[in-house]
Amino acid sequence: MVSFESDYIMGAHPLILQRLIATNTDFHTGYGADPYCESAKERIREACGCPDAEVEFLVGGTQTNVTVISTMLSDSEGVIAVATGHINVHEAGAIEYTGHKVLALPHHNGKLAPDELEDFMASFYADSSYEHMVIPGMVYLSHPTEYGTLYTKEELQKIADICHSYEIPLFLDGARLGYGLMSLQSDMTLSDIAKLCDVFYIGGTKVGALFGEAVVFTRQNRPRHFTTSVKKRGALLAKGWLLGLQFDTLFTDDLYFNISRHAIHMAEELKEIFREKECAFYLESPTNQQFIIVENRQIEELKKQVRFELWEPYDESHTVVRFVTSWATTREDLRAIKELRFCV
Amino acid sequence: MVSFESDYIMGAHPLILQRLIATNTDFHTGYGADPYCESAKERIREACGCPDAEVEFLVGGTQTNVTVISTMLSDSEGVIAVATGHINVHEAGAIEYTGHKVLALPHHNGKLAPDELEDFMASFYADSSYEHMVIPGMVYLSHPTEYGTLYTKEELQKIADICHSYEIPLFLDGARLGYGLMSLQSDMTLSDIAKLCDVFYIGGTKVGALFGEAVVFTRQNRPRHFTTSVKKRGALLAKGWLLGLQFDTLFTDDLYFNISRHAIHMAEELKEIFREKECAFYLESPTNQQFIIVENRQIEELKKQVRFELWEPYDESHTVVRFVTSWATTREDLRAIKELRFCV
Amino acid sequence: MVSFESDYIMGAHPLILQRLIATNTDFHTGYGADPYCESAKERIREACGCPDAEVEFLVGGTQTNVTVISTMLSDSEGVIAVATGHINVHEAGAIEYTGHKVLALPHHNGKLAPDELEDFMASFYADSSYEHMVIPGMVYLSHPTEYGTLYTKEELQKIADICHSYEIPLFLDGARLGYGLMSLQSDMTLSDIAKLCDVFYIGGTKVGALFGEAVVFTRQNRPRHFTTSVKKRGALLAKGWLLGLQFDTLFTDDLYFNISRHAIHMAEELKEIFREKECAFYLESPTNQQFIIVENRQIEELKKQVRFELWEPYDESHTVVRFVTSWATTREDLRAIKELRFCV
Amino acid sequence: MVSFESDYIMGAHPLILQRLIATNTDFHTGYGADPYCESAKERIREACGCPDAEVEFLVGGTQTNVTVISTMLSDSEGVIAVATGHINVHEAGAIEYTGHKVLALPHHNGKLAPDELEDFMASFYADSSYEHMVIPGMVYLSHPTEYGTLYTKEELQKIADICHSYEIPLFLDGARLGYGLMSLQSDMTLSDIAKLCDVFYIGGTKVGALFGEAVVFTRQNRPRHFTTSVKKRGALLAKGWLLGLQFDTLFTDDLYFNISRHAIHMAEELKEIFREKECAFYLESPTNQQFIIVENRQIEELKKQVRFELWEPYDESHTVVRFVTSWATTREDLRAIKELRFCV
Repeated sequence: MVSFESDYIMGAHPLILQRLIATNTDFHTGYGADPYCESAKERIREACGCPDAEVEFLVGGTQTNVTVISTMLSDSEGVIAVATGHINVHEAGAIEYTGHKVLALPHHNGKLAPDELEDFMASFYADSSYEHMVIPGMVYLSHPTEYGTLYTKEELQKIADICHSYEIPLFLDGARLGYGLMSLQSDMTLSDIAKLCDVFYIGGTKVGALFGEAVVFTRQNRPRHFTTSVKKRGALLAKGWLLGLQFDTLFTDDLYFNISRHAIHMAEELKEIFREKECAFYLESPTNQQFIIVENRQIEELKKQVRFELWEPYDESHTVVRFVTSWATTREDLRAIKELRFCV
Repeated sequence: MVSFESDYIMGAHPLILQRLIATNTDFHTGYGADPYCESAKERIREACGCPDAEVEFLVGGTQTNVTVISTMLSDSEGVIAVATGHINVHEAGAIEYTGHKVLALPHHNGKLAPDELEDFMASFYADSSYEHMVIPGMVYLSHPTEYGTLYTKEELQKIADICHSYEIPLFLDGARLGYGLMSLQSDMTLSDIAKLCDVFYIGGTKVGALFGEAVVFTRQNRPRHFTTSVKKRGALLAKGWLLGLQFDTLFTDDLYFNISRHAIHMAEELKEIFREKECAFYLESPTNQQFIIVENRQIEELKKQVRFELWEPYDESHTVVRFVTSWATTREDLRAIKELRFCV
Repeated sequence: MVSFESDYIMGAHPLILQRLIATNTDFHTGYGADPYCESAKERIREACGCPDAEVEFLVGGTQTNVTVISTMLSDSEGVIAVATGHINVHEAGAIEYTGHKVLALPHHNGKLAPDELEDFMASFYADSSYEHMVIPGMVYLSHPTEYGTLYTKEELQKIADICHSYEIPLFLDGARLGYGLMSLQSDMTLSDIAKLCDVFYIGGTKVGALFGEAVVFTRQNRPRHFTTSVKKRGALLAKGWLLGLQFDTLFTDDLYFNISRHAIHMAEELKEIFREKECAFYLESPTNQQFIIVENRQIEELKKQVRFELWEPYDESHTVVRFVTSWATTREDLRAIKELRFCV
Repeated sequence: MVSFESDYIMGAHPLILQRLIATNTDFHTGYGADPYCESAKERIREACGCPDAEVEFLVGGTQTNVTVISTMLSDSEGVIAVATGHINVHEAGAIEYTGHKVLALPHHNGKLAPDELEDFMASFYADSSYEHMVIPGMVYLSHPTEYGTLYTKEELQKIADICHSYEIPLFLDGARLGYGLMSLQSDMTLSDIAKLCDVFYIGGTKVGALFGEAVVFTRQNRPRHFTTSVKKRGALLAKGWLLGLQFDTLFTDDLYFNISRHAIHMAEELKEIFREKECAFYLESPTNQQFIIVENRQIEELKKQVRFELWEPYDESHTVVRFVTSWATTREDLRAIKELRFCV
C-alpha cells in the first residue's frame, strides 16, 4: 500500500546509502571530528553564502530545537512561537524541560503575523509587572510551517527587524527547509534565510537523509562550549561522521535542492489530482504537505487503500487529513491517489 | 497616602507580632521540627475537617505552586491552568523551570469552565499523536481567581469529578482563600475545599501573616521525602517555627476567618462607594479585589491621591485598575476613596 | 535547657524586632521596591567599600547559593567546591536541580587548597576529552567553612588569582561571614572580601536576622533580569521590605559586626571551658562553631542537659559533636556547659 | 593507519548494512511503531530469558543513561555510581542536567565494592540530617566498566541484594555488554544480567550497529508514558525502524554474541602481543579495552604508527594509554601492533 503519511517514511537517498557503504569499513574518528563533517560544513557555508557561518550537526528535529533554544536563551527568557508551532505542541514539552517557557502567539495558517509580534513586544515592556513574567528572548518560526505555508521574504524581513530592534535572535526551524525553498511560491534563497536569521537549521531527516539536521549559526554566535552542551543533552552522536557523510552528499551537486524540487513537483501533481476530484482543501499549501477535508464516514475505507495522517477534526462530520510528498514520492504513488474514490 | 495596591502591603496581624515577640528569645529547633508547627498543623487539620491531612508550610505563593506542582507531576506530565492563571503569567516561568509545561485553557473572568476541561481531556486522548504531547497530569485552579471571582461548589465538584475520572489531582491555589471563603457569595466551607481538592494551600502572606502558606495534602498523598524536595528548591526556612507560630495564631479562635471577613466587609463598602461614584466595574467580583475602568487621562491625578494597581488596558482611552482590601483595611482608608473625584 | 545546636535557634536581634513593630502598619510597596531595601543596599555598599556593588536580598542560604550559581554559570559549566561544601552535601542536590554539576575537590578542614585548584584547572584543560566533561565555571568557597575554619587573605588572594586567570568568578558563601570577620584570627575586612570576590553573600539568618541573606555583586556583574530569575526560582519575597528593614538595622552603627564579635567572645570562652575539661577538639576552629570528640556512651546523658549537634562518627566508640555560639549566646548559657561532666 | 582508538570507529556489521539496503525504499511507520522494532524486542526478550521484559530503543549511550535514570528516580533522589563511572565523568553533566545528583563512591579498577555500597546506605540513613541530603535512589554500574573490568555473578548478586533491601533499582550500563558476556572470565549470561538487574541496556553502537542501544526493563517497571518522556528529551528517532532493523539483525543467529566473541579473541591476542613486548599493563582487563603504560617520550612516535587513546597520566614520565578491539578488528590490525617498537 502506498503511503503519504509523512516525509520520513523511507530510508535515505541512494547516493547517501552508497557513501555509507563505501566508507563502512574505514577507520573514523568519533564525535564529529572527521573530514566528512568538515567538508559538509564547508559546502553548507558556501550554499548559504555565509563564509563565517558555524555549522553543527544533530540527529533529529526536536533535539535540534531544544539544543539551540536552550543554549541561546538566558535564564530569565522564554521563546516566542505561534500556538501551532512544533515546539509548542508536538515536542512533549521538550523546551519546558530545559526550564524555558514557550510564549505562544496566535497563528495564521501556521504563521506568525509581524504586527502581532511587534504588539506583543511593545506591550510586554509597557507592563509595569513585566519583571514577574518570562522575558521574551528569541523568536522561533518554522518554515515551511506545520501547515505547509511559507513566509514571504518581506514578512521574514519584518520579523527579523523586530527581533533585532529588541536584540533577540531569530531562529528558523527548517525541518522541511528544502521543500520551502523549492516551492513555486518561494521568493527566498538559502542565502536570504542565512542573511535574515541569526540561527536556523537545514532539515535532513525529512529531505533525503536517514537522520540529521544541520544547524547554521550565522553571526559567529554559536554558544561557547557548544559540543559540551550537546553532549550534556545526550545529543552527541558517537559515529558523528554519519552526519557529515550525509550532509556532504546532500550538498554535493545540489542534491538537496534537486530532491526537494522533485517533492514539490509531486505535490503540485497531487494538488491537481485533488482538484480534479473536487476535494476541499483545508488551506492553500505551496509545499509538500497538503491538507484536505474528508467526510468522517469515508476515513476507514480510505485507510484501506492509502496511508495518510489524520490531522485534526474539522467539524462534527469532517476531518482534516494530511498527505505528504517527499524526495522519494513516485508517479506510481500518485497513480494510487488518482484511483481513490473520495471527497465527493 | 492610603494604599489599595494589594493585600500584602502591611506587616502582620498584631496577634502574630505579639507571638513573635513573646518567643523571640526562646530556643527553637530549626527547619520546622518545632512544637508551633505541630500545633498549627493540628489546628489546620481540624479547621479542614480532615484529620488525616498532611500539612506543610512554605514561605511564598510561587514557591508553593512550584513545589506542589513539580513534586506531584510525573515526568511526562504538565499542569492545566487557565491562561490568566498566576502560574501561567506572573511567576516568571517558575513551573517551566521545573521542566513541566503549563497547558493553558481559556478563562472566563479568571475561571476554568468544567465542560471545556472535559472537552480538552477527551480530545487529548482521542488524538492519535498524543504521545508526542505533554500529558495533562494535574488541574490548577486559583480560588479566588486572579480576577477575584469564585467557583461555586457545583463547579468545583464538576472539575473534581473530571480530574478523578482521569486520575489526576486537583490543586487549588488559595493565596487568598480566606477572602474567598468569607465572601458573601461563597457557598463553600474550608471543609468543602478539603473534600473536593487533592491538595490546596491556605494563603498567609495576603491574609495576616508576614509570610507563609500552608499546603494541605488531603489524601495521604504528600510526595515521599517531601522535606528533601523542599530543601532541593531552596525553600526550607531555617527558622521554620516562624511559619508554625503564624499559622498557629491564625487558626486560633478563628482569627483567619475573622480577619478575612473584615476584608470582605471593607470590599463591600468599597464597591458601594464606587457605585455611588458611578464607576464602571470591569467585572463583578465578590471578594477583596475590585476592578474598575478609569479614563487614562485621570490616572496620573489619581496616583497622587491613592495607591492602586494598573491591571490591564481596557481600550484606547481606558484602563482597568485594581483596588484591594485586606485584613488591615480601615474605614479611614475607605474615606480617602470616598473623597476621590474620578470615574465620571 | 540551653542550646548550642546552631546559630539559628532564636528569633531576631531586639533592634530588628523593634523596627518590625514600628513599621508594621505602614503601607509598603512589595517585592523589594521600598526605601528600606534602598537604604540597606547603600549601607552595605559603604560597609564593603564598594560603591558600585549591586546588592540583592534573598530569604535563605540554599536559595541564595542556588540563585547565584545557576544564574552566573553558562550552560556547559559546573561549580567547583570542596567535597564538604554546603552545596555538595547539605542542600539536597539544589545545585544539580538547576542543571549544573558540583565538581568536588578534596577539603582540608573544610578548605580548598589553592594549589589543588590550580592543578585541577590545568589538568582539566590538558585532557583531550575535556569537551565531554563539565566545564569548571565558578569557584564556590564558604567562609567560614562548614568546619568553622577561615581562609587567610593570602589564600583567598591565590584562589582569586587562579579564578581570574581562567576567567571564572569566585563566589564566597558568607552564611556566617560576620563570625569569620570578627574571629581573632581573621586578617580580612569586609572590604577585602569585596575586593577579592566577584560575588559573595552576607548571611543574616545566622547573624541576628529572622531570615535574609544579602548578595553582593562586586563587578557590575549581576545577571541581567535578575529579579525575574529570582521570581522564577520562587525566591522573591512578597513583603520584601522585611529584608531591607533587617539589613538596614544590621548595618546601622556596626550592629552586624558587634553582635558577631560577641559570638566570637562567647566561642573563645566556650573553648576555654572545653580546654579546662580536657575535651579533645576535633580541629582548631577560630569561629563560632566548635567541634569536640565525645565518647558515644556519654551522648545520651549529655543530650539530657544541653542541645548540640551530632556532626559525624569519629571512630567506633567516639563521635564528633558540634557546639555553636551566636549573637544571642549568654554567659548563663556558658555556665550550663561548665557544669556538664563529660569528655574525660 | 590502523586504529585501536575505540570500538566505535567503523560503520555497521555487513549484515546490518544489507538489511538497511534491502528495506531502504519500503514504506515504514515512524517513531518505532514498525514490525522490525516489534521483532527485535521479541528476540531480545528471548535472549534475556525474560518474556515479560519491556524493551525500548534509543540512539546513544549518554542519551540512554539520562533517559533511564531521570525517569526512574523520584524528585528527591540521586543515583549512586563510582567516581570513574561514565555518568560521573564523561557525560558533560547530563544526569545533573535532569536535576539529579550523581552520588560518587570510590572505585576499584572501575568497580563498585558491595560492602562500600552497604556502608554508604547504612550510614546515610543513620545520619540525623539525611533529609537535607540527596536520597540515594538507584545504583548505576557499568559492565564492563570504563576500565574493561567485570563484576562476578557473586558481586552483582550482592549489589542487587543491597539495592533490593533498600528498595531502589539496580541499573546496568551495558554499552559494551557483548564484550563483557563473551569475556573468557565472564561467569554470567545475558539471562543472569536480566535476573539481577531491574533495568539495563544492551549496547549496539560499540557492538556492530551504526548506532542504537536497547533498554530492557525486567520487572514491568518501564516508567509510564515512556515514549512521551523519550520525546521530551529529544531522543525519539523519527525513523525508528532503523533501530529495530539493527537489533533484529544483531539478535538473529547469535550475531551479537558471535561478533562480541571475535572482539574478545582479538583482545586476547593483543594482550599476548603486549606481553611479548613486555609492556606494563595498567590493570588486568578481561574484555576488549586494554590499558598499558607507555613512556611519554614515545607517544609522539607511536601516534605516527597507530591510533589509540591517551587515557590518563600515570606518573611524571608515563601515561596510561588505551587500545580497544571490536567486532571489526582484524588480524591485519593486530599485525600492525606487533610491528610497533615501544614499551621497553
